[in-house]
Amino acid sequence: MAICFQTPFKPIGFFNDNSKNHKPLLRCNLSLTTTELEPVYTSVKSFAPATVANLGPGFDFLGCAVDGVGDYVSLCVDPSVHSGEISISDITGNHASRKLSKNPLFNCAGIAAIATMKMLKIRSVGLSLTLEKGLPLGSGLGSSAASAAAAAVAVNELFGGKLDSRELVLAGLESEAKVSGYHADNIAPAIMGGFVLIRSYDPLELMRLRFPTEKDLIFVLVSPNFEAPTKKMRAALPTEVGMSHHVWNCSQAGALVASILEGDLLGLGKALSADKIVEPKRAPLIPGMEAVKKAAMEAGAFGCTISGAGPTAVALIDNEERGKHIGERMVEAFWREGNLKAAAMVKRLDRVGARLVASVPLR
Amino acid sequence: MAICFQTPFKPIGFFNDNSKNHKPLLRCNLSLTTTELEPVYTSVKSFAPATVANLGPGFDFLGCAVDGVGDYVSLCVDPSVHSGEISISDITGNHASRKLSKNPLFNCAGIAAIATMKMLKIRSVGLSLTLEKGLPLGSGLGSSAASAAAAAVAVNELFGGKLDSRELVLAGLESEAKVSGYHADNIAPAIMGGFVLIRSYDPLELMRLRFPTEKDLIFVLVSPNFEAPTKKMRAALPTEVGMSHHVWNCSQAGALVASILEGDLLGLGKALSADKIVEPKRAPLIPGMEAVKKAAMEAGAFGCTISGAGPTAVALIDNEERGKHIGERMVEAFWREGNLKAAAMVKRLDRVGARLVASVPLR
Repeated sequence: MAICFQTPFKPIGFFNDNSKNHKPLLRCNLSLTTTELEPVYTSVKSFAPATVANLGPGFDFLGCAVDGVGDYVSLCVDPSVHSGEISISDITGNHASRKLSKNPLFNCAGIAAIATMKMLKIRSVGLSLTLEKGLPLGSGLGSSAASAAAAAVAVNELFGGKLDSRELVLAGLESEAKVSGYHADNIAPAIMGGFVLIRSYDPLELMRLRFPTEKDLIFVLVSPNFEAPTKKMRAALPTEVGMSHHVWNCSQAGALVASILEGDLLGLGKALSADKIVEPKRAPLIPGMEAVKKAAMEAGAFGCTISGAGPTAVALIDNEERGKHIGERMVEAFWREGNLKAAAMVKRLDRVGARLVASVPLR
Repeated sequence: MAICFQTPFKPIGFFNDNSKNHKPLLRCNLSLTTTELEPVYTSVKSFAPATVANLGPGFDFLGCAVDGVGDYVSLCVDPSVHSGEISISDITGNHASRKLSKNPLFNCAGIAAIATMKMLKIRSVGLSLTLEKGLPLGSGLGSSAASAAAAAVAVNELFGGKLDSRELVLAGLESEAKVSGYHADNIAPAIMGGFVLIRSYDPLELMRLRFPTEKDLIFVLVSPNFEAPTKKMRAALPTEVGMSHHVWNCSQAGALVASILEGDLLGLGKALSADKIVEPKRAPLIPGMEAVKKAAMEAGAFGCTISGAGPTAVALIDNEERGKHIGERMVEAFWREGNLKAAAMVKRLDRVGARLVASVPLR
C-alpha cells in the first residue's frame, strides 16, 4: 500500500461541496512549469451516490441519483507513486468487490481518476487511491459510475475543484465506456445529483431536471441475488422499434420529464411503468420481475420498473413507511415467483451528487 | 340558409371564456324530458386557433396553439332544423373552403358539433351552423381541428358549457378520426390552448405543458403554395425505427418538454430542429423545405421544422420584428429552391384555446 507523504488520511468532518474557502496552509510547487495545478489538500475523501438509469421510457438518456448509498474514494498525494500516475492501494467494501482489479487502467475509479488528472494536466504529482465499495457490482444501481464519479470528484477537489460537472462527467464517461458502454445516464446523475437528461454526446449536453425541493421522492430498490450482465441485457433488445411503440415511448418520456419538473409523483410513477420497448424484453430475463412489479403496484407504489439493466427493481412512493411495506412485498415476490433471495432499500432522491465528505488540508 | 328563430346573429362583444355569468333572460324547455339541457343563448360565435402538431420529436403526441389565426363558427338555435340535428347553412372564408361539404356528416365542424350534441344528449333542439374558415386547408396548421374545435365549443357553450376540455377533445377527435386519423395533437391544443402532450388514447389522457406566461414565444409560419396530403406524408414514414434513432428522438422529446416548461426558447428551438425520424423523410417531399430550414436558422431562428404533416414550415423566435425578417428569408428560400410561392405569418403562442367570442342571450 502506498503511504501518504504527509499525515495519513484522516476524515476531518463532513461538508457538502466546494472546498475553495479552505485555504491551504502550505503550498509547494511540485511542477516544473508555472501553469501546473498544485494540490490544495493532502488527502480527500469523496462520496458518489447510486443511480437509477433508464427509468422506463427514459432508456439510455435519463437517470437519477439515490441518496445514502454509494461508493467512497479516499485519495492522497503520494510521493512513492510515479509523477502523473495513480496507484490503487486498497479496495474495501462488499464481498464481490474483491473481484475488482487494482490496476488503475482496469478499474472504474482508476480510469476516471487518470482521465481527471489528464484534464487537469497533472504531471508532477503521484496519487494513491482507496476505493470503498458501498454498492454491489452489476446490480443495476450504477456501481461502476459511482466509483468513477467519486474518483473524478476526489481528484478534482484535491487540486482545487477547477473542473465543472460536465467535464467531470466526460472524465467519468471514459471509465463507463470501457466497462459498460459510452452511456452517461449513470455517471451524469452520479456526479450532478437529481435527475439528468442526456441531450447529446457530440458534444456532451446535459440537462438537469429539477424535482421540486419541497416534495419528497422515495425509491424502493430491491436487488435479487441474480446476475444480469449489462451486455446480455443489452443483447436482448430489438435493433428496430415499431413506429407505434416509438411514438408511445416518446410520449411517455415526455410525460416522465414533465412529471419530474412538476413534482407530480403519480404522473412520474405512471410514466416509469409505461415502457413498451425495453422492459418487456428484459423483465422475462430476471426471474420473478413481472410478479415483483405487480406486487409493488398492488402494495401502492406509484410506478415500478427495472433499474438500469437490472436485476434491481425500482419502485416509487412518497413515504418511507409505505416504501418499507412495498419493499417487503417485492422481496416476497422475488422469492415466491423467481426463487431468488432479495434485499430491499428505501432511499430518497439525492439532489447533490458526488461530493467531498472529508479533507486534510496541506500543512 | 336556415334562419334563426329569434334575433339574427349579432356579435355582442368579445370576451375570453366562460359564459356562465351571463344569465339568460328567457328559458323555454324544449325538451320532453326533465333532464335535457336547454340552450342558454340564442346564438354564439366561437373561435378556435391554428395549431402546430409534432414539433419535431413530438411526432404524434405534442402540439401547440397559435394565436390570431383560426376558424370561426357561428351557431344558432334553428326551429327549421330537425330536433337533435345540425344544418350547415354557410361556409365562408378562403377560396379553397368552397371544396368543403355542407353535409354535416362530411364536414369537420358538423361532425364535431353532432358529437358534442350527442354528449350533451340534445334531442329536442335543431341547430344551424356557419363556418368561417380563416385557415387554408391541408396546410399543416390544423385546419380541420380548428373547425372541429370551434364547433364543439360553440355547441357546448350554447347549452351552458357543461362539458370539460377533455370531453370536447373527444368530440373533436370523432371529426379528426374521419378526416386525418385518430390523432389529438391538433384538436387538443386547438381546444385547450398552449402546449398539450397526448399521454394516452385509451383512456384519453392529456397533459397541459405550461409555457411561462412572462415569456414571449413567436412562431414564424411559412406556407408554400403546395399540396402535401396528410395520407401521402404519413405513407412516407418508416414502419420501423432503428434503436439509436428511437433513443435520440426520445431524448429530444424529453428536452422539448423540459424546454417548454422552463421557458427555455433556445432549448426549445434546438429540440424542435432535432428530429431524426419524421422530418428527414417528409422534408424531401416538400420542394425547398431543407433550404427553408437552413434559411430560417441562418436568419437567427432558434429552431425550425415542418408544421404537422406540412407543407407549412414553422420557425421559432422570441421577437416579432426578427420573426418578420426570418419569414422573409424563408419565403425567399421556398421560391429560390422550391420554385414555390409562399406566405409568411408571425404569430404568438395561443394560451387560451377555442373560446366564445360573441353571444346573443335568450330574450
